[in-house]
Amino acid sequence: VIASQIANLLLDIEAVRLRPEQPFQWSSGWLSPIYCDNRLTLSFPEVRTVIKNALVELVKTKFTNVDAIAGVATAGIPQGVLVADALNLPFVYVRSAPKGHGLENLIEGKIEKNQRIVVVEDLISTGGSSLKVVDALTNAGANPIGIIAIMTYGFDAAKKSFREKNIELHCLTNYTQVIVEAITRNMIDKTVLASLEEWRNAPEVWQNA
Amino acid sequence: VIASQIANLLLDIEAVRLRPEQPFQWSSGWLSPIYCDNRLTLSFPEVRTVIKNALVELVKTKFTNVDAIAGVATAGIPQGVLVADALNLPFVYVRSAPKGHGLENLIEGKIEKNQRIVVVEDLISTGGSSLKVVDALTNAGANPIGIIAIMTYGFDAAKKSFREKNIELHCLTNYTQVIVEAITRNMIDKTVLASLEEWRNAPEVWQNA
Repeated sequence: VIASQIANLLLDIEAVRLRPEQPFQWSSGWLSPIYCDNRLTLSFPEVRTVIKNALVELVKTKFTNVDAIAGVATAGIPQGVLVADALNLPFVYVRSAPKGHGLENLIEGKIEKNQRIVVVEDLISTGGSSLKVVDALTNAGANPIGIIAIMTYGFDAAKKSFREKNIELHCLTNYTQVIVEAITRNMIDKTVLASLEEWRNAPEVWQNA
Repeated sequence: VIASQIANLLLDIEAVRLRPEQPFQWSSGWLSPIYCDNRLTLSFPEVRTVIKNALVELVKTKFTNVDAIAGVATAGIPQGVLVADALNLPFVYVRSAPKGHGLENLIEGKIEKNQRIVVVEDLISTGGSSLKVVDALTNAGANPIGIIAIMTYGFDAAKKSFREKNIELHCLTNYTQVIVEAITRNMIDKTVLASLEEWRNAPEVWQNA
């Protein structure tokens, strides 16, 4: 139920846009039928609060003995700290790479040895930046136990990476759910469904629907 | 009272460190008797909450008809979104400069024309990055009405810049208050007071106490 609700909210405020026939070009160069900017949710208090409460529920139901919350910089910081605030837990934020001048820390804030940490991300694509954050926390002596995110594209490569690192991933909604809701709402035609599924399976070669 | 309380909390958790005899070197090259990392406050839920509540109080008492909150990226994002959450207001975050590849927006989230926006910053030094954020919001059609911050060093140059831009600045605590508390707590000796005051007046030429 929550996956459907969040998918609809993202479509409502155009945080998720679908354009199967006129693809978006991502910064990686990939053509994509979908563009997602979850940062827009921050400007809609009702949507932001639904997401906050749902993320808090994920932490409570999927994990035990959580000591701290980490936000993936930059987009995972806002919802990450809201979750930490709601649960009265310590918060840190973590960069997936040092900035150019190298003077800044990867981890901002203070972590303790063996702290059980849940990482908050806004969107899972290839999973690369989340896993770098997991590595940074591990290298600093903490124990990152899982990642939660607002949405995932559901790429096989990401699933495989998380499995290999033994990291649990829980997302509020996903690409397939967004497609289902968009078809129900007549925002896209179901004749493009096969092509949209092809993109999820092989985004690096997809052209357009 | 709040300025004293916050100064003491920052000293307690070593978010503020004073070393008048063995100065810190800032990334600007300046030698400084003080080093401040307010991001550490995020990892101490009680301190974080005292700061959140005090910032919320500033917004309520110093400004009228606030439509949205903006956080200065990156360090102003966490407390910024906590304030927005507590007041149920829209939130955006704003970079003071575009990142290298230029693909990212200066403003993340959505602003509306003429929205009255309070900007949240963690620390005011020369004031440069806060004022760039004010400019970015103004250029995008919004109406930034003021800046609030956890702490300010109290440099004259910053005060002058804010006055020239007609931007109200309100901070929870400041350098002078921190010095007073540190002397009361015998963390530094009052014989260095004159030198510490010299630093605030001319940080670019100060050497050590």
